[in-house]
Amino acid sequence: MSTTAPRRGRRPGSPDTRAAILAAARQRFAQQGYAATSVRGIATDAGVDSSLVHHYFGTKEDLFVAALELRVDPREVLPIVAEGGVDGAGERLVRLFLSVWDDEESRTPLVAVARGVLDPGGQRLINDGFSRMVLQPLGTALGIDRPEERMALVASQMFGMVLMRYLARIEPLASASPEWLVDVYAPVIQGYLSGPI
Amino acid sequence: MSTTAPRRGRRPGSPDTRAAILAAARQRFAQQGYAATSVRGIATDAGVDSSLVHHYFGTKEDLFVAALELRVDPREVLPIVAEGGVDGAGERLVRLFLSVWDDEESRTPLVAVARGVLDPGGQRLINDGFSRMVLQPLGTALGIDRPEERMALVASQMFGMVLMRYLARIEPLASASPEWLVDVYAPVIQGYLSGPI
Repeated sequence: MSTTAPRRGRRPGSPDTRAAILAAARQRFAQQGYAATSVRGIATDAGVDSSLVHHYFGTKEDLFVAALELRVDPREVLPIVAEGGVDGAGERLVRLFLSVWDDEESRTPLVAVARGVLDPGGQRLINDGFSRMVLQPLGTALGIDRPEERMALVASQMFGMVLMRYLARIEPLASASPEWLVDVYAPVIQGYLSGPI
Repeated sequence: MSTTAPRRGRRPGSPDTRAAILAAARQRFAQQGYAATSVRGIATDAGVDSSLVHHYFGTKEDLFVAALELRVDPREVLPIVAEGGVDGAGERLVRLFLSVWDDEESRTPLVAVARGVLDPGGQRLINDGFSRMVLQPLGTALGIDRPEERMALVASQMFGMVLMRYLARIEPLASASPEWLVDVYAPVIQGYLSGPI
């Protein structure tokens, strides 16, 4: 990749103004949570008009994703898991997780976000970020029964794998091959998605 | 419980000396890890003789457990899981985990320890604490094949459940009944212990 290529998702605008909006957004989302945060409030904090925030970043959800600095937009990759229905969704989800987390460029900002889940605001981060943007849409797209319970079980195993493999880097999981991890985790995730619970 | 009852595991000795030894132990274990820490070094830091450390706290492992301030000594409760062999060990392990973590008195110090797993020294904490004192002895006692891989898989699900239910307190797992959690997690843990991996 050329170093002069624009960063993915970047929109035109003064770097200073963009940075001020992002800083205000991060602070508001962290302090108040997603639902209670308004684009108007962020604009006020950044000293700009709301229309400029929308012009630079799109919707509030787009701004939330931008504030997380993720290289992968969950809304773009989740259809890969959802298409084809619940059969095989466990394997597709584990493969997607591993491909995103094994890639250093996409892992770096995720590590920063994931470390925050044990901070005092971690509950909000999981509920606003992971649940609202990943688990709930996926449960809906898959059309499973009891989606909240099933997706929470899925999350409990995915978080635990991330913690062991990528955050604390505990062996033998840290060095395990993606194929072996798919073999052992996919049936479990599939069971949480479509087995008896 | 009477407020004047001695704390569990407490040994006689000057409170100041005991506190100085514990403070020195926590610092050494955190900075150097379990293996590289010597009782002699802790004694030097605390300004006492090594024999006094052994007199107050017993072995280095006893001192490590005391420094973690756990109300439950893993060495005492793991035989409950191990006896009876690998059959049913998944359910016994999930039940033990839930009983310890659902009890507020035993949960409080565990929450403090668990929050530390995402700190820079978290890898050491998991390897020295959880792996060395819980996972490895249990794998050995159960006589399972590939104990390191199996117990790491077990840990990845147990950590994930702890994170969701007790640390971030994400619903519906935070309010789920222990019986339901045993129903859904015990077969998974059993699969990691004795299924194909």
